Amino acid sequence: MGKCTNHSDIETSYLCMKHNIYLCDECLECRDPDIYCKFRSSCPIHFISTKDFESEPGKSTAKELSIVFQPGDIKVTVQEGDNLLEASQKANLYINASCNGKGSCGKCKLIVESGAVEHKKNAMLTRKEIEKGYVLACQAKILDNLSVIIPEETLEKKLKTIGMGKEATKKLEGLVSQIDPMVKKYTLQLEPPTLEDTVSDLDRLKRQLNQNGCDIHIMSTGIRVMRQLSESVRENDWNVTASVLQKKCSSEIVAVTSADQEKRSLGMAVDLGTTSIVVYIVDMLTGDVLSAASGHNSQAACGDDVINRIVCSEKDGVKKLKKMALSTINNLCLRALESLSESHKNIENIVISGNTTMIHLLLGIQAKYIRREPYIPTISEFPIIKAGHIGLKAAHYAGIFVMPGPASYVGGDIVSGVLYTGFCKESDLTLFIDVGTNGEIVLGNNEFLMTAACSAGPAFEGGGIRWGMRAESGAIEKITLDPETFKPEYNTVDNKAARGICGSGMIDLLSEMLFKGVLGQDGRFRIDEEHPRMTVINEEPAFILEFADAIDIEEDIIFTESDIKSLILSKAAVYAGFSVLLEEIGMDFSMVSQMIITGGFGQYLDIEKAVTIGLLPDMEREKFKYMGNSSIAGAYMALLSNDHRQQAIEISNTMTYIDFSSNTKFMDEFTRAQFLPHTESKLFPSVTQFN
Amino acid sequence: MGKCTNHSDIETSYLCMKHNIYLCDECLECRDPDIYCKFRSSCPIHFISTKDFESEPGKSTAKELSIVFQPGDIKVTVQEGDNLLEASQKANLYINASCNGKGSCGKCKLIVESGAVEHKKNAMLTRKEIEKGYVLACQAKILDNLSVIIPEETLEKKLKTIGMGKEATKKLEGLVSQIDPMVKKYTLQLEPPTLEDTVSDLDRLKRQLNQNGCDIHIMSTGIRVMRQLSESVRENDWNVTASVLQKKCSSEIVAVTSADQEKRSLGMAVDLGTTSIVVYIVDMLTGDVLSAASGHNSQAACGDDVINRIVCSEKDGVKKLKKMALSTINNLCLRALESLSESHKNIENIVISGNTTMIHLLLGIQAKYIRREPYIPTISEFPIIKAGHIGLKAAHYAGIFVMPGPASYVGGDIVSGVLYTGFCKESDLTLFIDVGTNGEIVLGNNEFLMTAACSAGPAFEGGGIRWGMRAESGAIEKITLDPETFKPEYNTVDNKAARGICGSGMIDLLSEMLFKGVLGQDGRFRIDEEHPRMTVINEEPAFILEFADAIDIEEDIIFTESDIKSLILSKAAVYAGFSVLLEEIGMDFSMVSQMIITGGFGQYLDIEKAVTIGLLPDMEREKFKYMGNSSIAGAYMALLSNDHRQQAIEISNTMTYIDFSSNTKFMDEFTRAQFLPHTESKLFPSVTQFN
Repeated sequence: MGKCTNHSDIETSYLCMKHNIYLCDECLECRDPDIYCKFRSSCPIHFISTKDFESEPGKSTAKELSIVFQPGDIKVTVQEGDNLLEASQKANLYINASCNGKGSCGKCKLIVESGAVEHKKNAMLTRKEIEKGYVLACQAKILDNLSVIIPEETLEKKLKTIGMGKEATKKLEGLVSQIDPMVKKYTLQLEPPTLEDTVSDLDRLKRQLNQNGCDIHIMSTGIRVMRQLSESVRENDWNVTASVLQKKCSSEIVAVTSADQEKRSLGMAVDLGTTSIVVYIVDMLTGDVLSAASGHNSQAACGDDVINRIVCSEKDGVKKLKKMALSTINNLCLRALESLSESHKNIENIVISGNTTMIHLLLGIQAKYIRREPYIPTISEFPIIKAGHIGLKAAHYAGIFVMPGPASYVGGDIVSGVLYTGFCKESDLTLFIDVGTNGEIVLGNNEFLMTAACSAGPAFEGGGIRWGMRAESGAIEKITLDPETFKPEYNTVDNKAARGICGSGMIDLLSEMLFKGVLGQDGRFRIDEEHPRMTVINEEPAFILEFADAIDIEEDIIFTESDIKSLILSKAAVYAGFSVLLEEIGMDFSMVSQMIITGGFGQYLDIEKAVTIGLLPDMEREKFKYMGNSSIAGAYMALLSNDHRQQAIEISNTMTYIDFSSNTKFMDEFTRAQFLPHTESKLFPSVTQFN
Repeated sequence: MGKCTNHSDIETSYLCMKHNIYLCDECLECRDPDIYCKFRSSCPIHFISTKDFESEPGKSTAKELSIVFQPGDIKVTVQEGDNLLEASQKANLYINASCNGKGSCGKCKLIVESGAVEHKKNAMLTRKEIEKGYVLACQAKILDNLSVIIPEETLEKKLKTIGMGKEATKKLEGLVSQIDPMVKKYTLQLEPPTLEDTVSDLDRLKRQLNQNGCDIHIMSTGIRVMRQLSESVRENDWNVTASVLQKKCSSEIVAVTSADQEKRSLGMAVDLGTTSIVVYIVDMLTGDVLSAASGHNSQAACGDDVINRIVCSEKDGVKKLKKMALSTINNLCLRALESLSESHKNIENIVISGNTTMIHLLLGIQAKYIRREPYIPTISEFPIIKAGHIGLKAAHYAGIFVMPGPASYVGGDIVSGVLYTGFCKESDLTLFIDVGTNGEIVLGNNEFLMTAACSAGPAFEGGGIRWGMRAESGAIEKITLDPETFKPEYNTVDNKAARGICGSGMIDLLSEMLFKGVLGQDGRFRIDEEHPRMTVINEEPAFILEFADAIDIEEDIIFTESDIKSLILSKAAVYAGFSVLLEEIGMDFSMVSQMIITGGFGQYLDIEKAVTIGLLPDMEREKFKYMGNSSIAGAYMALLSNDHRQQAIEISNTMTYIDFSSNTKFMDEFTRAQFLPHTESKLFPSVTQFN
């Protein structure tokens, strides 16, 4: 790249994007204000490294640097070379970074007011933002003492966790009639000991627990509590709160603390998805969702679907994937707690809902036999586990209830869905589909439950789609095309500038393109490559959803023929799944009273359009019901109520699993469904035929 | 100390005891064979450091040195400055060192064949031994590569652990009719999974356990087992052994291993005494004691009795005392296992019997309220604890049953004693005394049990007595005095050269001195200081038991007037205890059918002489029964049988504790008993009165 601007005899190492000057290593070392510092003090220099930056092993020369965040004047000391996201986490500022530091979600924007960072080139920042000193925290390597401003929109996102909580509270209201946590708290006034009453501290505590209606005969006590007990009771003048963790058929005194300590008992519900993870923080007294956070499962670095994750766990060890899921949950948890100013130590109850592979990997349990015939999970129904045993951020004694999963490819997330939607208690026949990265189907009522997985792939969650994304800020979730110009009119989540397209947006788009003649039923473009909305990328035609210039980004947002193909495969798998499951018990769509759809489509899922593309069967539209993320909703219910935890176990035990992997009927149906809406048009009488 | 022999201008640092030459630091550094190496290669130089040897902090200059042990050619690498006992432990040679490296037991004798060590001056080695190259491993700081021989007598001691086991097996035979361990093993042939039978690995295991008669409804599984399960069952072709730990009212699958692995399941019974610790390794199938080991509780460095231990734990933290007890038990365990060539991982069942303070400290539980009115222990009845949770050397999942203790000063060791001696099942009234460092008494039968502690002090265990020791190798345990010359005739444990005097020896001695007129009933010497067997030490008259020259040691073995005073206080406390306990329920010695004495006196306890000095009441001699270490015997019984574990809990709950600490009757009786045998001679009608 040539020579340094300041030292003409030295090879350049860095490029300042703002001032377009080249700097060398000496510039960074140099404290002469005429050379280096004139930039350093006045501008957030955006370096692009022009060579590898790694120091020799064993020769650690990292300096200690100090970062000050505004507002709040929060100081933190870091090592030279750390990235700014790590620094913010060290400062307990849990800035949203749902892509886990890959620079792809664009959420961790900060403004560097003074001091130098090295920033990788990134399309998520507009030119205007770069000029203003914006960086993506995860892409900014710290080279200097920094003064950093957390911009309004980033602060807003922090507040949003509370907003999400309020929304969830409203949505989930009335689901739980009586709160019955795993960890119950008893406030006790113990009789102080005398020479006449010399029973041990523990017996004294149990005596009082017994008087308060607690079954002490099945009760044990952990070594930690034993070690702290004598001081706990005396420091608090024999007025204490005992926390008792209820397990399957025994209980354990897990903490004895001050009785007047007015701390809230919190719960955490976790939807552990292959692609994304959602965390609710719940007040265990009122049942209110206090805050919520969601982000990408950082295991995504090991592949999009469960099979790839298992392959990775076999190669690199289960521990690696365990750590990844754990750190994602822990970060989301801390982010959700931060807005509440609550400590993670107040979380005493946890429910985790996820597919069988995700649960195995989170717990560090070998998952390799899940992908080998005859597809056996290690564990279906889990005992209550303590948070400290697996490393979840919570009270070390917090009880974790893991949603039981009936099979390797139908897991606890689906049991959550059945629990939440409640059709297992009705006599009407219901068809249930959760469209995540897999596509699990349940057919049944209060008499039976059949289930299968149809390998739909992650397309509807944005996986494998060039501009695909989850239904989060900036995702196109609703779209129509102008019949003449094909110019899209769209809504985005949070009405932010478009950053990609989510499931409901893709369904809209496919249906619109079909209707407006942009696309044939075979999934190929029918308009010319010369059309102003068309382009070619990697020798493949693509439809332009939004031009880069219009929203000040680096590249056009497009939808390619490969994207369309992926979507068609996904929707065909789902439809084939429905058909085969009904066939198995000699039924058809007409006998289904209700069709429940859950998953991460976004709130604007257009049923009509989903039928149009053949994702959903052509039934009376009033039979369809979109119910959002049912995995987190079921986890929430189980968090609050023992009845629901028991019901979850019952649902899992009732489910009969049908394996599609070696099912020829499924393969036939799958092939037949790879058309828009279907090769057999009579199955979709209400849908206009286009060819 | 003058100048170096080799370098006359340098201050000397070391003295070679054998060659009587002085060496300086340069000698040690120097490799010139004419200067330093001529000694190093040919003789085990016994250095005495003449200055502090510590290097500056942060300036570690320790060399790596290699030690070879013979027989067996066992090599180990150590740091310069390590002591030889540590080196032998590193080489897995668990040489007996019951004083825990204080250089006072003289058991860890090794011969340094070549290479140099720095050896502290120590009276346990005879001049002849020093000439032969003997060192005490614990006192020898390694300065060089060494070739070390383990002498015959040290090897013998290793074999002795098996001998002790055989003795114990014989003694304990018939006590347990049915073996029923905490960890039960089930060998299972599982049905391999098929596409038709896809239940999870854990459910498959439980299904089979259920068929084998195991109650799976109260069963949980730990995270470790879950993590290893899928591989365990498949690697072993679905033919596995499941270990199930039975807790109070639930059970846990703690291990799943190969079924054909022919490893023995071992148990460990521990008598955790204030002064000494005894460990039995037991075959859980046959009930045989395979080996045994005993040693001093290394907490002794923090004081002789429980009060001093508690004071120390308040000052330095409970952790310190926990570590000390733990490391003593672990070392004894490894020593006992070594002779069996068994791994500690095969120990799956553990019972620990000890007084309330010892148990608290071992488990890291605050003991400070034990010594404060109203003397409350934190815990009396313990849940089953896993070995891994407290750091005991055993399978991490091994179940530990802690003998329950009814009060702060009457602990699980006494419950063990009651369990073992079995009088709680008889209608006859029994008086039970355990003479350890405390002196606990139980009075009762199958209808009631009363108990008290009488603070007898550790005199009968050798504590606070100048030449006092436990009944171990070299302890004088039986003694008579020549009526003319007062020359003692004595037996020692193992018939080794005398090293001190144990409880039974002291009782003999006191009684003999009384009879032969050496001593008055007031505990003062009645013969002249000029007598050949008398001496004066620290301005105090003392009786010479053995002359140093006669057995080639450095100092005479003596018994001082202070020693006598200590013994009188101890025996008075015990006698006062008996009296007050009987008085409490309006009884007297005549109503007692049986008097059981346990504790570390040694096998030659002479009842007649114990009555003569007033330790035991003047009852018909056939009513007395000495039953040795009942704490370890009770622990052994509970180790093998659930009935006995339950019985122990029952015994503990039945016991009524009488507090002597604020009991004026006790103080009166204690004062009255401070005479030989007693101030009230009519209480000892059968004992000749001497004045």
